[in-house]
Amino acid sequence: MNAIPWQERPADNTDIIWRYDQNPIIKRDAIPSSNSIFNSAVVPFEDGFAGVFRCDNKAVQMNIFAGFSKDGINWDIDHEPIAFEAGNTQMIASDYKYDPRVTFIEDRYWITWCNGYHGPTIGIGYTFDFKEFFQCENAFLPFNRNGVLFPEKIDGKYAMLSRPSDNGHTPFGDIYLSYSPDMKYWGEHRCVMKAAPFTDSAWQCTKIGAGSVPILVDEGWLMFYHGVINTCNGFRYSMGSVILDQHDPSKVKHRTQPYLLSPQTPYECMGDVPNVVFPCATLHSIAEDKVTIYYGAADTVTAMAFGHISEVIQFTIKNSL
Amino acid sequence: MNAIPWQERPADNTDIIWRYDQNPIIKRDAIPSSNSIFNSAVVPFEDGFAGVFRCDNKAVQMNIFAGFSKDGINWDIDHEPIAFEAGNTQMIASDYKYDPRVTFIEDRYWITWCNGYHGPTIGIGYTFDFKEFFQCENAFLPFNRNGVLFPEKIDGKYAMLSRPSDNGHTPFGDIYLSYSPDMKYWGEHRCVMKAAPFTDSAWQCTKIGAGSVPILVDEGWLMFYHGVINTCNGFRYSMGSVILDQHDPSKVKHRTQPYLLSPQTPYECMGDVPNVVFPCATLHSIAEDKVTIYYGAADTVTAMAFGHISEVIQFTIKNSL
Amino acid sequence: MNAIPWQERPADNTDIIWRYDQNPIIKRDAIPSSNSIFNSAVVPFEDGFAGVFRCDNKAVQMNIFAGFSKDGINWDIDHEPIAFEAGNTQMIASDYKYDPRVTFIEDRYWITWCNGYHGPTIGIGYTFDFKEFFQCENAFLPFNRNGVLFPEKIDGKYAMLSRPSDNGHTPFGDIYLSYSPDMKYWGEHRCVMKAAPFTDSAWQCTKIGAGSVPILVDEGWLMFYHGVINTCNGFRYSMGSVILDQHDPSKVKHRTQPYLLSPQTPYECMGDVPNVVFPCATLHSIAEDKVTIYYGAADTVTAMAFGHISEVIQFTIKNSL
Amino acid sequence: MNAIPWQERPADNTDIIWRYDQNPIIKRDAIPSSNSIFNSAVVPFEDGFAGVFRCDNKAVQMNIFAGFSKDGINWDIDHEPIAFEAGNTQMIASDYKYDPRVTFIEDRYWITWCNGYHGPTIGIGYTFDFKEFFQCENAFLPFNRNGVLFPEKIDGKYAMLSRPSDNGHTPFGDIYLSYSPDMKYWGEHRCVMKAAPFTDSAWQCTKIGAGSVPILVDEGWLMFYHGVINTCNGFRYSMGSVILDQHDPSKVKHRTQPYLLSPQTPYECMGDVPNVVFPCATLHSIAEDKVTIYYGAADTVTAMAFGHISEVIQFTIKNSL
Amino acid sequence: MNAIPWQERPADNTDIIWRYDQNPIIKRDAIPSSNSIFNSAVVPFEDGFAGVFRCDNKAVQMNIFAGFSKDGINWDIDHEPIAFEAGNTQMIASDYKYDPRVTFIEDRYWITWCNGYHGPTIGIGYTFDFKEFFQCENAFLPFNRNGVLFPEKIDGKYAMLSRPSDNGHTPFGDIYLSYSPDMKYWGEHRCVMKAAPFTDSAWQCTKIGAGSVPILVDEGWLMFYHGVINTCNGFRYSMGSVILDQHDPSKVKHRTQPYLLSPQTPYECMGDVPNVVFPCATLHSIAEDKVTIYYGAADTVTAMAFGHISEVIQFTIKNSL
Amino acid sequence: MNAIPWQERPADNTDIIWRYDQNPIIKRDAIPSSNSIFNSAVVPFEDGFAGVFRCDNKAVQMNIFAGFSKDGINWDIDHEPIAFEAGNTQMIASDYKYDPRVTFIEDRYWITWCNGYHGPTIGIGYTFDFKEFFQCENAFLPFNRNGVLFPEKIDGKYAMLSRPSDNGHTPFGDIYLSYSPDMKYWGEHRCVMKAAPFTDSAWQCTKIGAGSVPILVDEGWLMFYHGVINTCNGFRYSMGSVILDQHDPSKVKHRTQPYLLSPQTPYECMGDVPNVVFPCATLHSIAEDKVTIYYGAADTVTAMAFGHISEVIQFTIKNSL
Repeated sequence: MNAIPWQERPADNTDIIWRYDQNPIIKRDAIPSSNSIFNSAVVPFEDGFAGVFRCDNKAVQMNIFAGFSKDGINWDIDHEPIAFEAGNTQMIASDYKYDPRVTFIEDRYWITWCNGYHGPTIGIGYTFDFKEFFQCENAFLPFNRNGVLFPEKIDGKYAMLSRPSDNGHTPFGDIYLSYSPDMKYWGEHRCVMKAAPFTDSAWQCTKIGAGSVPILVDEGWLMFYHGVINTCNGFRYSMGSVILDQHDPSKVKHRTQPYLLSPQTPYECMGDVPNVVFPCATLHSIAEDKVTIYYGAADTVTAMAFGHISEVIQFTIKNSL
Repeated sequence: MNAIPWQERPADNTDIIWRYDQNPIIKRDAIPSSNSIFNSAVVPFEDGFAGVFRCDNKAVQMNIFAGFSKDGINWDIDHEPIAFEAGNTQMIASDYKYDPRVTFIEDRYWITWCNGYHGPTIGIGYTFDFKEFFQCENAFLPFNRNGVLFPEKIDGKYAMLSRPSDNGHTPFGDIYLSYSPDMKYWGEHRCVMKAAPFTDSAWQCTKIGAGSVPILVDEGWLMFYHGVINTCNGFRYSMGSVILDQHDPSKVKHRTQPYLLSPQTPYECMGDVPNVVFPCATLHSIAEDKVTIYYGAADTVTAMAFGHISEVIQFTIKNSL
Repeated sequence: MNAIPWQERPADNTDIIWRYDQNPIIKRDAIPSSNSIFNSAVVPFEDGFAGVFRCDNKAVQMNIFAGFSKDGINWDIDHEPIAFEAGNTQMIASDYKYDPRVTFIEDRYWITWCNGYHGPTIGIGYTFDFKEFFQCENAFLPFNRNGVLFPEKIDGKYAMLSRPSDNGHTPFGDIYLSYSPDMKYWGEHRCVMKAAPFTDSAWQCTKIGAGSVPILVDEGWLMFYHGVINTCNGFRYSMGSVILDQHDPSKVKHRTQPYLLSPQTPYECMGDVPNVVFPCATLHSIAEDKVTIYYGAADTVTAMAFGHISEVIQFTIKNSL
Repeated sequence: MNAIPWQERPADNTDIIWRYDQNPIIKRDAIPSSNSIFNSAVVPFEDGFAGVFRCDNKAVQMNIFAGFSKDGINWDIDHEPIAFEAGNTQMIASDYKYDPRVTFIEDRYWITWCNGYHGPTIGIGYTFDFKEFFQCENAFLPFNRNGVLFPEKIDGKYAMLSRPSDNGHTPFGDIYLSYSPDMKYWGEHRCVMKAAPFTDSAWQCTKIGAGSVPILVDEGWLMFYHGVINTCNGFRYSMGSVILDQHDPSKVKHRTQPYLLSPQTPYECMGDVPNVVFPCATLHSIAEDKVTIYYGAADTVTAMAFGHISEVIQFTIKNSL
Repeated sequence: MNAIPWQERPADNTDIIWRYDQNPIIKRDAIPSSNSIFNSAVVPFEDGFAGVFRCDNKAVQMNIFAGFSKDGINWDIDHEPIAFEAGNTQMIASDYKYDPRVTFIEDRYWITWCNGYHGPTIGIGYTFDFKEFFQCENAFLPFNRNGVLFPEKIDGKYAMLSRPSDNGHTPFGDIYLSYSPDMKYWGEHRCVMKAAPFTDSAWQCTKIGAGSVPILVDEGWLMFYHGVINTCNGFRYSMGSVILDQHDPSKVKHRTQPYLLSPQTPYECMGDVPNVVFPCATLHSIAEDKVTIYYGAADTVTAMAFGHISEVIQFTIKNSL
Repeated sequence: MNAIPWQERPADNTDIIWRYDQNPIIKRDAIPSSNSIFNSAVVPFEDGFAGVFRCDNKAVQMNIFAGFSKDGINWDIDHEPIAFEAGNTQMIASDYKYDPRVTFIEDRYWITWCNGYHGPTIGIGYTFDFKEFFQCENAFLPFNRNGVLFPEKIDGKYAMLSRPSDNGHTPFGDIYLSYSPDMKYWGEHRCVMKAAPFTDSAWQCTKIGAGSVPILVDEGWLMFYHGVINTCNGFRYSMGSVILDQHDPSKVKHRTQPYLLSPQTPYECMGDVPNVVFPCATLHSIAEDKVTIYYGAADTVTAMAFGHISEVIQFTIKNSL
């Protein structure tokens, strides 16, 4: 595997998370058909990296595309969307696909995304090679978004975070955990964490959603998530971190009261949907104490930010809600 | 088993479904604590009938109560709500319980209801004797209402209809089907039927929800359901019928374009929520060609209506949407 | 022509307008298919009366039906809706028809109604005999409701009142006047009267709409109209009267500040849409100083009320907004 | 003083509060101009009773009227609204007046009402004789409703309960306490009680408002108040009771979780605003252990209900939220 | 006539439509009183160009102004708004005027705009010389916006596209066609094209409106129009093209599924209303295969974009919805 | 006292109010914990200036902080929020504090702010030295915002402007005046000025609020205020000026129809809430005919603008609404 992309913290910067100075790494028109490329997921793959990318086309139809990179920064994204074959069921209609996440479990790469089946719900698929893709049963009834799998089974079962939603610009949203013995039937639904009271942490007071695949650290499962505040000029999406219990990840151990990253740069504040920072994936090296976060900016482009895992953990513990 | 309650169609009445002339059969204050008793479910039990009743108390807290009857008309309802023990999981918090359905499958009576777990979702429980009750895992993530089980397994799996909702006076709602191998994990979610276009059948144009437990007839599964129109003075709930495919009940074979019953009497038009007719259960005898429908009226009282099964089937086929 | 239906004012009643004591005159199930019959229009015809009736069927589809009566009270309504042939244009699609008005001008009976063409707008048709009906161009772009023709040309042109609306439970609405040289092209649109300020006349503060065909009296055009208030339990529809200038009916001369009739009886307060009184037609005899108003009640049935024209005029003048 | 109006509890009735069997005592057209008479206040006066009545006229303009009664049941209400003279300030514009309360303090009868000054706020006036009335400064900035004075000074200051609102069908509302040294300047605003959580007491989960003038009993200040639930067919208003601390009435000692009275009769369920029970005043005799509650029904008529003070107190304590 | 303003496509650009590199051509403060100048119309005039410009003043009052240019890029805009004289009727009140279009038909320049007459509707006027202006009857009842005339009569009648609206930030909107024999009375209203389903073409899924005056090409009438999507941060306005049938322009032959231009530059994404691209006019030369589009940006400034007519036509045909 | 900060009008600028060319003067991260610093108040203090600053932290909790400056441009802001001691009452809970104003009256600096007490209301406090701070009774019941004290007593009483609001993104808002004899009890509430009709001055048509402490000039009290328009992409906040009667400041003498400053620069158009200009304070010298306005930009940073008092007065008079 290649080293994960990395850039040291600037000398005058004291933030826990800092941005890549060449952001955005993927521009809105990186493939010929695209209106925007954002909210996308990457994983180590072979000697480099692979990913699944949300590319809205110029009719603003949402679909997911495979892509490959040697360095995690420069990406070759397929010009055609992923064509799924039937996985653990006959093919399910899909009006649209967006906001993918990718997780390697046991022997394959699992992909979850927001799947259009009479409204948004969680689609599931897998691939072994990022060439052939197989689509499984949707995890849940509509309406749902932001389905994120844990990278290993918990108590012998697959585990997924998700956010029950409605069919529009959902003005509410909490994170739940569900289990499955077989990636087909899901149950044991538990509420994990809720939007925060306005007076406690307003940046995450309207809704929250799981972001990156959880990373197992000594303190539990470390995950980056997004939180939303409804201002008088629309929703603003920022990023925080949470540490869930290793054995019962429905239990929150620590959760950032302050945000780690909020929309402040022109590419985060200007675009198809201004004021959006939306993390969907990380690359990390616990040995090197590094995490690189991939996030969508302004629902238009893809950007990168960096942090030291140990600092993020300490910050999350010390500034817990 | 006793004969099901019955009253012949009045001579001057040509309706497919006609009301009991002593309606309502259960008044709002039938037990000391109750503000209203409605949207309740009954089944044959021993030599008479048993049921699970929604009784809101005078603090307007919603809970479900067991009850018994010799004739299906006069009911003794317990004064205390059902106290569940843990079933296939540890006990789950339940902020409220309402709109129960009861189905006998294999060896026990299964109960589903709208369960308050961070909003409405489908609670599941069972009993063998209507004395001891056991609560299982919730079937779905919130938000959901009107979970109705099929009275036998389909292709070896339990099957449930439900209506994804939101956390309030949901202004939308379609009926879905889900399967479970074990009453714990659910999947294979399919859209069954949607609210009708306004110009096709306005009484069911805002939302629909499963009502009574489906009855297996030669033509498939016969079910009574409710449909809602949003008038300029609020929602109006009426009742129709649908016949689903026996082997793949996600397929609608016939569905009434006209309503079978709409709010027209004072006890349906006046009460805590005016203009509501809401079926939750039937007693039926295919041999005698009779079906007796139990329905909530005005969210306040419980009423009964009658029909001949063969006539309902023919009407549903001939007046299909 | 037969005498118009009439009943004297009860001895203990001092109201300007009083109800028929056998109301409702047309029940909701007066024809086999009907869910409700209301908001309907009548005219003298041959030696009796004819009318066009809004009958919603039990699928709650809205259509208009012809009917005949000897006495104006007992009506024979066709069991099939009016089948229009092409009038001054090729046939226009009509998703639904409701709330008809009928006016005799020159040589034929003109019918206007709310016509479903990509939303509600004003449909126009005519008949010579209430057997053959011809449909013309819609008067206006959507969205519009309550189109009422004047019974004679004004300044050589047809004149119509209407209420621009939107595609739902419109929470606003004012009455406008438009002219046409040919019943095909319409222009010279003028605002006639607006919903009243809440503090001046709250029963008509949310929206108003033309009701009956204007009657030419010495003081101008006398018309009954409906006004709506939005209470915390939905819209309430009441009836007032207005006198428009004979030569320029865009000018309001007098308009009742108090209502003439508001929903107070069980058949007005209970039904598919509670608390609705909605006038659509009158029969009148200036010689006898009588006017008989036909109005829909609770969007469910048709009712009748009576008044002396001179008293209505005096009341309108003395209690003008 | 005459005895307060009273009727014993029916033999088969076990309710804490029971209705007068001749309700409503004041019909909607009790004076010539009135559309409705409701939400009105009464006090002992001379050898009988006097009151201030909300009479909406047939233009549905809201105003308050004086009235007198020998027995508290049969009322003579003035045909003209109260004409105020300037009290502790120059005259303030008043677009409308509604929902009065009356309290005798020290030497005069104080009247509070919802006063239209750029939206609803609390108007204050006084009278010595119910003939001459004087209007003072409004207590608060808009928007406010349901201002109720305590019948004696507390810690040397006048004390008033009120409910901050907005300018419409306010979907929220809690009860606050404010003090004034002089009935002109108000401060020391404290939150007293809030709408209840839905799962605790749904009949009062949307908004609450002070109702009758508090009665000093051994346990503190006993007050009847209204609570509102927002159903899918509009707001429903019911009545509960609360006991506030005698010396610091911002402290709630006991508050009914169940309602004491909810809309159940035709005159409470049918009318201009269906499903409203709204208490505004009591007559009481502690010696006789009697309280007679005057309440508006369906925003249309005035009704009476009865209870034993000791029973109400015990019920409030035993069923406290 | 001077050559139309033009700039060749940059070498590295493959878009069908490309922007002027000196955009915006008219800044927000181009005349002393203006807050913003946008959504404006231009035509060839004498040896150069004339136009009608929407200039909102610093009180944000909307009005239209005449302007002149030699090259179509540098404009002299009058400092006073257009003063209309009476045209085919007495003068009509106009609370505001905005979003003008200009079309030469037969002998004069016709101007349409959004005219404030009890809400927005379509105003009509004409001029021969851009000095004297005459105002005619409004085309339609309120509420309407984006009225665009065809540049020649069709079947002997004037033809106009428009979009029925409501009185606010209309969240719906389809394009209709109407005819008039005389520019005074309008009829034969036909629905032309509707907002697209979200899954087909989301950028135009909320509402659409006619933009520039249609250009007659071999394939029919080519028009640029705007489409709107409602994001969680407000409306975003983009531009597409449509080809209507030459003889029956109510028939859509081809319509772009992808947008041609969407807000991406700072002057389109930042301003009084961010994320707006709004075409109102073109200059074109079929001989030279050039079209220059004038569009408002961010409701603040005026910008220009270019294309080859043949390419636009081919793109529209090949990417038709 | 030091001279107030000042910068001459640029040569090519003809505006009444011009911006500081080094704006913003206080950046969002000027103290370690801050997410944003804006809507803040300054006064002359000792030989320089002091102020109270709204600093939202990175959990987006709102609080107010003291700060000091020699030149009014470079500020040292405390890193901890102001800790209040009890003033004229026991301590009142405060869920949050924002949008402070500061006024010197008689012997101390009075601070008002939006105080979270069951929703926003007006908090009052004072200090003599900007080190010790004392909190008094809230002025009003919730919901209220933008409380601004006059810098001297009027007719022997304290006078405060405020804006009754609701508990969210209030879509309405007018300015009222209230008086107090003692800074504890408030009354004599008068409506001062309302949002302007859309057609008269749209930038201030949705809501308005008092901004800076009024300055006494020959013509009366000169105040800068904010006005808001609700665009289809959210609220836009601009600034105007008003002159109130010296002796009865509930009377408006002159009020700008055009805005004086609207969001046009990147730091006003991009940030946590785009398109906000929000004045909270001025420094002024009547002798030098200078006023320096401090305003929040985009709810993110603090900026400065300048004007000549005499020009502002003349402009306000000549362009009065």
